[in-house]
Amino acid sequence: MNKNALLDVAVLGASGYVGRELLGLLDKHRGVRVVTATSESESRVDGVRTVPLAEVVERWAPVDALFSCLPHGVSGQRSVWAQDRGARVVDLSADLRLSSTAVYGLTEVARPSLGAAGLVANPGCYPTVTLLGLIPLASAGLIDTDRPIIVDAASGVSGAGRSPRRELLFGEVAEDFRAYGAGNTHRHLPEILAGLRPHAGDLDLVFTPHLLPVRRGILATMHVPVADGMDVTQVQRLFTNAYADEPFVRFLPHRLPTLRDVVHRNLVAIGVVPVAQVRRPMITVVAAIDNLTKGAAGQAVQNMNVMFGLPETQGLAC
Amino acid sequence: MNKNALLDVAVLGASGYVGRELLGLLDKHRGVRVVTATSESESRVDGVRTVPLAEVVERWAPVDALFSCLPHGVSGQRSVWAQDRGARVVDLSADLRLSSTAVYGLTEVARPSLGAAGLVANPGCYPTVTLLGLIPLASAGLIDTDRPIIVDAASGVSGAGRSPRRELLFGEVAEDFRAYGAGNTHRHLPEILAGLRPHAGDLDLVFTPHLLPVRRGILATMHVPVADGMDVTQVQRLFTNAYADEPFVRFLPHRLPTLRDVVHRNLVAIGVVPVAQVRRPMITVVAAIDNLTKGAAGQAVQNMNVMFGLPETQGLAC
Amino acid sequence: MNKNALLDVAVLGASGYVGRELLGLLDKHRGVRVVTATSESESRVDGVRTVPLAEVVERWAPVDALFSCLPHGVSGQRSVWAQDRGARVVDLSADLRLSSTAVYGLTEVARPSLGAAGLVANPGCYPTVTLLGLIPLASAGLIDTDRPIIVDAASGVSGAGRSPRRELLFGEVAEDFRAYGAGNTHRHLPEILAGLRPHAGDLDLVFTPHLLPVRRGILATMHVPVADGMDVTQVQRLFTNAYADEPFVRFLPHRLPTLRDVVHRNLVAIGVVPVAQVRRPMITVVAAIDNLTKGAAGQAVQNMNVMFGLPETQGLAC
Amino acid sequence: MNKNALLDVAVLGASGYVGRELLGLLDKHRGVRVVTATSESESRVDGVRTVPLAEVVERWAPVDALFSCLPHGVSGQRSVWAQDRGARVVDLSADLRLSSTAVYGLTEVARPSLGAAGLVANPGCYPTVTLLGLIPLASAGLIDTDRPIIVDAASGVSGAGRSPRRELLFGEVAEDFRAYGAGNTHRHLPEILAGLRPHAGDLDLVFTPHLLPVRRGILATMHVPVADGMDVTQVQRLFTNAYADEPFVRFLPHRLPTLRDVVHRNLVAIGVVPVAQVRRPMITVVAAIDNLTKGAAGQAVQNMNVMFGLPETQGLAC
Repeated sequence: MNKNALLDVAVLGASGYVGRELLGLLDKHRGVRVVTATSESESRVDGVRTVPLAEVVERWAPVDALFSCLPHGVSGQRSVWAQDRGARVVDLSADLRLSSTAVYGLTEVARPSLGAAGLVANPGCYPTVTLLGLIPLASAGLIDTDRPIIVDAASGVSGAGRSPRRELLFGEVAEDFRAYGAGNTHRHLPEILAGLRPHAGDLDLVFTPHLLPVRRGILATMHVPVADGMDVTQVQRLFTNAYADEPFVRFLPHRLPTLRDVVHRNLVAIGVVPVAQVRRPMITVVAAIDNLTKGAAGQAVQNMNVMFGLPETQGLAC
Repeated sequence: MNKNALLDVAVLGASGYVGRELLGLLDKHRGVRVVTATSESESRVDGVRTVPLAEVVERWAPVDALFSCLPHGVSGQRSVWAQDRGARVVDLSADLRLSSTAVYGLTEVARPSLGAAGLVANPGCYPTVTLLGLIPLASAGLIDTDRPIIVDAASGVSGAGRSPRRELLFGEVAEDFRAYGAGNTHRHLPEILAGLRPHAGDLDLVFTPHLLPVRRGILATMHVPVADGMDVTQVQRLFTNAYADEPFVRFLPHRLPTLRDVVHRNLVAIGVVPVAQVRRPMITVVAAIDNLTKGAAGQAVQNMNVMFGLPETQGLAC
Repeated sequence: MNKNALLDVAVLGASGYVGRELLGLLDKHRGVRVVTATSESESRVDGVRTVPLAEVVERWAPVDALFSCLPHGVSGQRSVWAQDRGARVVDLSADLRLSSTAVYGLTEVARPSLGAAGLVANPGCYPTVTLLGLIPLASAGLIDTDRPIIVDAASGVSGAGRSPRRELLFGEVAEDFRAYGAGNTHRHLPEILAGLRPHAGDLDLVFTPHLLPVRRGILATMHVPVADGMDVTQVQRLFTNAYADEPFVRFLPHRLPTLRDVVHRNLVAIGVVPVAQVRRPMITVVAAIDNLTKGAAGQAVQNMNVMFGLPETQGLAC
Repeated sequence: MNKNALLDVAVLGASGYVGRELLGLLDKHRGVRVVTATSESESRVDGVRTVPLAEVVERWAPVDALFSCLPHGVSGQRSVWAQDRGARVVDLSADLRLSSTAVYGLTEVARPSLGAAGLVANPGCYPTVTLLGLIPLASAGLIDTDRPIIVDAASGVSGAGRSPRRELLFGEVAEDFRAYGAGNTHRHLPEILAGLRPHAGDLDLVFTPHLLPVRRGILATMHVPVADGMDVTQVQRLFTNAYADEPFVRFLPHRLPTLRDVVHRNLVAIGVVPVAQVRRPMITVVAAIDNLTKGAAGQAVQNMNVMFGLPETQGLAC
């Protein structure tokens, strides 16, 4: 590839919330041009002409990079198909995240593998915020894995997609708040556990997602059992060092993050506090992301940048 | 007191969110009439004329019942003062909740003591929802107190009162979500622990409140370590039995509650699920209330009803 | 009918926003019992068992009163069918509002005709708020019909119903505001004009509805050309007198209403201001209702009360 | 000034909603550097260090451009003061908008005067959206000035500033909607009339602002009496031509704009529809802006760009 040439890029599934966000980011990215975008329901998305997926499949034209924002169950096989035809692929569905055919693209961890990757599984939104909040503790051996980690997380509604469903109507969501997937039944739990395993081995984690009456953003409150004798200054130093060179992770030494810190940014913001009045030491880590940027489309662009040797921050000004 | 006569009632601090809610409930209550209401900032609240507190103090006219919704720090001493002048008092502030001079008015627990009570400390909103979600497990001896209970709770903004503060402006709260009082620093923790102590002794509990972009309602997600061998059917039977005769507690056998179930009602709704994929048994209890009704004004009326021998549900149709 | 007996009532289409609101009101109404409720999508609505409409049709059991909240296009013929089978009917759809087979049930105007009515067309939400804001001026001959009345009105999303449509998702409606049906194309315009005609003859009116990011409530801002020489005191006296005995209309002499004044109440609140700095006299009338109560279910119950000789306010405490 | 040098810029009043927005825009602008920012309440705004205004006044250091976002009543005199000290000033308050000492900076109209301007009064948010929606009609002589224009406009709460006031609390604004400044009493009316006068002479206009439960954005629905014989195609051609070369005005030929089209953009979006069923011809113009960008900070940067001969769109990618 000519260093100065633009990458030709395709986006499958461009009219959902993630697809639109991705098109918006790619539009401002000076290193790419979107040559193909698909949608079954809209013929234009933010000014970009789209065609039905079937048309792309029938008349395949090679691209450098392909993003698949197709629904779970459909996306994975289409991504493999595109890779077979020469595209380097970022798949944003859950289909390939636990598979060995794809690199799991939590950029901050996967960076060394991305340069040669042909197929990247972009992490889920909850796993992204949870893993980036826990991995520094896990890899420093500071988590007491005899006791469970408790993660209560809350997401804005764009995380549930843009298909019309009664429970996502404004009249149902506004002024409401609810837990869903309680009792460790949510499909993101195995992804979180798999992401922690290389750093901390097996451990117990209770993950409960909630639905917030906001459009975008996830806040995860994580209660972490830590080794005796830990003090919070140590933990703060650990986070500060771990993320010192990361352009898209911000550790807040003096306060906890809120959605306001991250919305519309490709950014994870993290804060910690020690837990008082308990017999065995714990800390509470609070981490926030925008589910559509660092939790999906932003991280996908970040992955593409690293895959193709572009500056990691290109098109993702924080 | 003549059985058919109306109770004469005073409300101190009627123009805050709790005071207004209380006036609204008392207005529909057929057993009382509001003879005095105070406000420093408004001369009428929902059609009821108010006077400054100083005026009431100077020209004290006896009432049967007095509710104090004055600010913390001011309310307690004024309630004691009113009790000294013959009123039976429900104090809605935090001032007397940990004191032995008042009955702690979690109605479902305190009922036997209310008939003779001259001074009742109405519970805080977070303690109400937390305690009613945990006490059945605690008094059945099913909580494993060697391990901590984790409570992540989220409240609508009316819980923070009606005084103008920048962080409560619509422009700050809308589309945001944040933890506050993390690390066990919130003043409701001691109240929760004190409420559990008679039922379960001392235990560890991590309590983290969050601010929701809704006007009213609290949802508490509580992760409870339970004895080995417990199954969820047993727990469901326990809750069903514990609350079978309670007019203002609803156990949902098949699902978890949401704010929608309780808003504008004097009601706690509770559901439970077992936690899968952890080595030591836990259950997740989710409980919801409206912070202004069962979490404040509604419970205050419920307490008054019991104190004066009125039907407990009068004026509180669920 | 025995004066002390309960009315047997049926509700067709109970699971939409209007149907649910209606069931809630009827549940608290001491003069009726709901013996039949239909829904195609839910087997229970707020604790009331429902059956599919087809089942009611096949095994018709007589009722005293029937409310049809079925969709436009279906509702009208079903209401006529029920009337033929002996029920007195309130139809909440748009189907019969411009037809001579039904009494147009704007209660404050229709009261004399309701006692004998077998079929009542419940007014639309926008027409209700607009007509009650304009009729006093119209019937006093104060509107200058040579110039157009301009009505800009905004409604919460429950006015659009509970069927899943993409444009009603939380992610689409929150933080947005839009005009729809601009240019006098909305189907409520003929209903408004027909409602004004008996009072003011033909006139020009520009009606533009907007979609608000709230759940319930309509606010209409109406700019009315008035006769030369009118002063605002006169207008205020006019409104005060016109609505002096109306339990569900509140004229605010000193301020304009907001949604907050009317939500969850069967109430129209109205205020007026003179328009300064224009050459020919105009006044601005602002009126507010809750689209689900006075704009639909509440007014339906109010109509039923009058039809059956019950106290007009029964079950509708304001 | 060296063509390649950065402009030194000062921002007075940086911690309000407008000030913060402006800092955010300037931070991404490649032609300037912020050397001074003031705030009385916060020592940092979005990472920029601020000092109290008094400090800047005492130790004045020359800048190329100065933006004043100080409160009305304070801002104007400070802007004049800064101009006297050699800065070219954009004043964002209302103080100088009707004064002859400043150029009225509605960029699309004022462009020819900006190159030499030392002091620019940045237009109000409501006047910006109203004037850009009406001026093409006005300057083409198509408005029938014998009849009044009716403008009903609704704004998000950031338009009311960030000072804590009870009526702006989340608990008051959420789920509410209200008119304010009805009856032509709002201070933006004279500004709107003054802005129209050069194009259409004196005319009658009824302007009613409303408060929306959203954070940002203004939508103005404008009912305009037009000359007999006008057809909507003509009007559309007029708007298309008038704004063909404007980077920050988008005429939508086939639909009306919503807040969604403009939020977070320096953009006015405009659509028109003819009004049916009225005897004398009218059209409805709907226009939308983000009150913090094109309605304040964005237009201020746009003005600065033109004043200093920078590309007009620099730092304002749409």
